[in-house]
Amino acid sequence: MKIYLLLTGNELMTGVTVDSNSAMVAQQLMPHGLRIDRKVTVGDEMTELVEQLHQLSKECDVLIVNGGLGPTRDDLTAQALSDLTGKPLQEHPQALAHLQQWCQNRGFALNEANYKQALLPQDASIVANPVGSAVGIQLHHNDCEIICTPGVPSELKAMLEQSIVPQLQKRQPPEHGLLLTRFHTFGLGESSLQQRITEQLPDWPEQVELGFRAGLPTLEVKLQTPKTEPMLHQQWVEKLQQLIGDHIVAEEDGSLAQTLVQLLTQQGKTLTTAESCTGGMISSLITAIPGSSAVFESGYVTYANSSKQRMLGVDPQLLIDHGAVSEPVVRAMAEGALKNSGATYTIAVSGIAGPDGGSDEKPVGLVWLAWGSANKIQSASLFFPHGRAMFQPLVAGAGLDLVRRFACGIESEPRYLRERKPPTKAVN
Amino acid sequence: MKIYLLLTGNELMTGVTVDSNSAMVAQQLMPHGLRIDRKVTVGDEMTELVEQLHQLSKECDVLIVNGGLGPTRDDLTAQALSDLTGKPLQEHPQALAHLQQWCQNRGFALNEANYKQALLPQDASIVANPVGSAVGIQLHHNDCEIICTPGVPSELKAMLEQSIVPQLQKRQPPEHGLLLTRFHTFGLGESSLQQRITEQLPDWPEQVELGFRAGLPTLEVKLQTPKTEPMLHQQWVEKLQQLIGDHIVAEEDGSLAQTLVQLLTQQGKTLTTAESCTGGMISSLITAIPGSSAVFESGYVTYANSSKQRMLGVDPQLLIDHGAVSEPVVRAMAEGALKNSGATYTIAVSGIAGPDGGSDEKPVGLVWLAWGSANKIQSASLFFPHGRAMFQPLVAGAGLDLVRRFACGIESEPRYLRERKPPTKAVN
Repeated sequence: MKIYLLLTGNELMTGVTVDSNSAMVAQQLMPHGLRIDRKVTVGDEMTELVEQLHQLSKECDVLIVNGGLGPTRDDLTAQALSDLTGKPLQEHPQALAHLQQWCQNRGFALNEANYKQALLPQDASIVANPVGSAVGIQLHHNDCEIICTPGVPSELKAMLEQSIVPQLQKRQPPEHGLLLTRFHTFGLGESSLQQRITEQLPDWPEQVELGFRAGLPTLEVKLQTPKTEPMLHQQWVEKLQQLIGDHIVAEEDGSLAQTLVQLLTQQGKTLTTAESCTGGMISSLITAIPGSSAVFESGYVTYANSSKQRMLGVDPQLLIDHGAVSEPVVRAMAEGALKNSGATYTIAVSGIAGPDGGSDEKPVGLVWLAWGSANKIQSASLFFPHGRAMFQPLVAGAGLDLVRRFACGIESEPRYLRERKPPTKAVN
Repeated sequence: MKIYLLLTGNELMTGVTVDSNSAMVAQQLMPHGLRIDRKVTVGDEMTELVEQLHQLSKECDVLIVNGGLGPTRDDLTAQALSDLTGKPLQEHPQALAHLQQWCQNRGFALNEANYKQALLPQDASIVANPVGSAVGIQLHHNDCEIICTPGVPSELKAMLEQSIVPQLQKRQPPEHGLLLTRFHTFGLGESSLQQRITEQLPDWPEQVELGFRAGLPTLEVKLQTPKTEPMLHQQWVEKLQQLIGDHIVAEEDGSLAQTLVQLLTQQGKTLTTAESCTGGMISSLITAIPGSSAVFESGYVTYANSSKQRMLGVDPQLLIDHGAVSEPVVRAMAEGALKNSGATYTIAVSGIAGPDGGSDEKPVGLVWLAWGSANKIQSASLFFPHGRAMFQPLVAGAGLDLVRRFACGIESEPRYLRERKPPTKAVN
């Protein structure tokens, strides 16, 4: 069954509105093995709209149209359907009854603009709208089921759940569903991950579709297999898990910070942060997780040298001798944070986010990190010369991941500590 | 000139990713009077991709393709162009040089997956990518200029600004341009702002198109007027400025945090933060701005009561008597932060982000804020019962805005302090 989506609205063409409706439609269809094969978006322009209805309905089995059902004069969908099919617009009794009820519930009279929403092409049926004024419109044309839905997200959602998905599901053999597994990885680039898979799992089966999505700082890896192949799916999920192992920092809707908060909660341990170049981003990521108060008591944002001394007790001589972005200073920050907070674990970062402040020896993108617990503090430098907007999330991600590895007791050094080394002239 | 956009990527079809790239393209084209006439989105499926390249290139003058230029095997754009044109893929010297340089800058060797990105259809030219590994690909086919761009937003943005928009602008008569002015506002909802405009500026002219885009925590307001009407544009920009006045927190590409950092830099003043419920988000927003080290020395993330006492010297008795989310405690936090840091200004916040921790008297969504300088600390409560994911950015936005107003010497109380009051049973 081929399903196309036709979105309409000037606001979608001018960049005023980012289209999230089509993602909602796809997400509702996905678990039933239904997928959108093509999406087309056009403005509120009658000729183009009718043309697209005509073209797309010839090519697909189901055409979901979104937008253009409202009461204003740039809402063209009903008229476009009438032009397409040659069926005149006429008052639809159920649509009218729905509108009258809707107005009555809100204590105002049906006005002319709203009455327009009761005019449907002859022989069309309605799709009930449990939330808003506009009913959906459904009709059969060019051997295609055309289903028109409102642009208001809450109305679209209700219509999908209550009418459209159940209807489409009935048309679809149950074995067409998909099995989906998602991993979030840190420290692997899309290309290096793809290459490892190509090299080390060369017989990757076509039925298990592999997808990547670059987030910042994590990379999402997705496996999709037809529902009829649960063993195959599980087998390759496990092979992938073995291959990238400790780079997996979260699964499904989780995140790196969530994994860390859960881990520390289970262990009954706490964490404190000492942040220079990330300026509070690490603590912000942690405290975005509900329940983080069980593991996070305090964080130190020590952006200036003076605050590293005052808040974390860093020896001024260390700052003079080595500079703020150095191994001795970041270790002293970590020690100070642990001592002052009494937390089990800490992560301390000090780096050069740029665009200014870099030198040959300490270029923009260099960061020193120190992490661990009172009896074992580790440290390393990394190099992320990708501009401030990427540097900060990458450093924050590395910080969270290094604490996660430490708290998990993972002994092996993560690849990124080798691969993201600063250029050799950059010294401590 | 007819411009179409072809987006490719399974993640766009499955709802994993909400497409914001097409809005970015539209926004960059708009000021030059260039608009997208149709958008088509397809998955990473070769037949469909080639078919769409073929169809769309026959119908438009410029086809911007987005996505599919990455190193992995689901990146199909180069191969699809080759299939479309019958031109074989071959090593492109400039593309290869770019990739080698890119890898060298990052200190790793060009691998096979990345090398794939140097293979372009014969006779294609490249579009420089100043940010990432994938160069863009441009070629002429079916009397259409096909320009292929990467899916990574920062790379797309740079390519649009530096190559594509200037190129398309040259093809467009200059009088077709638009005048565009953008404001970022804090503390005004879209519908209430629309209503104020309808009521107080009822003769708003059709030629000055008004658009809104909801961000978090700011709302963007956009005015667009044909280039031929500069006086009209300026007149209505000024009328709108007068109407919403001190709610405007930034213009054009600015942000609330950037405005505040610039303001404090000009004043030679400094800021410190004392954050409970925002957990470092306020300091993180400030330090995301280049040059923020001139105005920000340190921040205190005092998530637990113990840390409010230890790091900010809050009297334990205040915490016992009033609880952490209270006016006396947040004022003590502000005082402690000012005293310890020596900064000119401070913002302190303590609230209940939820989902747990609320009560009848102190419901989830309640926050107390204190801001000001050593000789004048102000305080107020706000209520944002919208869930943790919205609560934290809204509180952070309010914190930044209240300091901005204080530092600017704006005397009038912002509307949101009246409109976002906690329910009356919620007491101090």
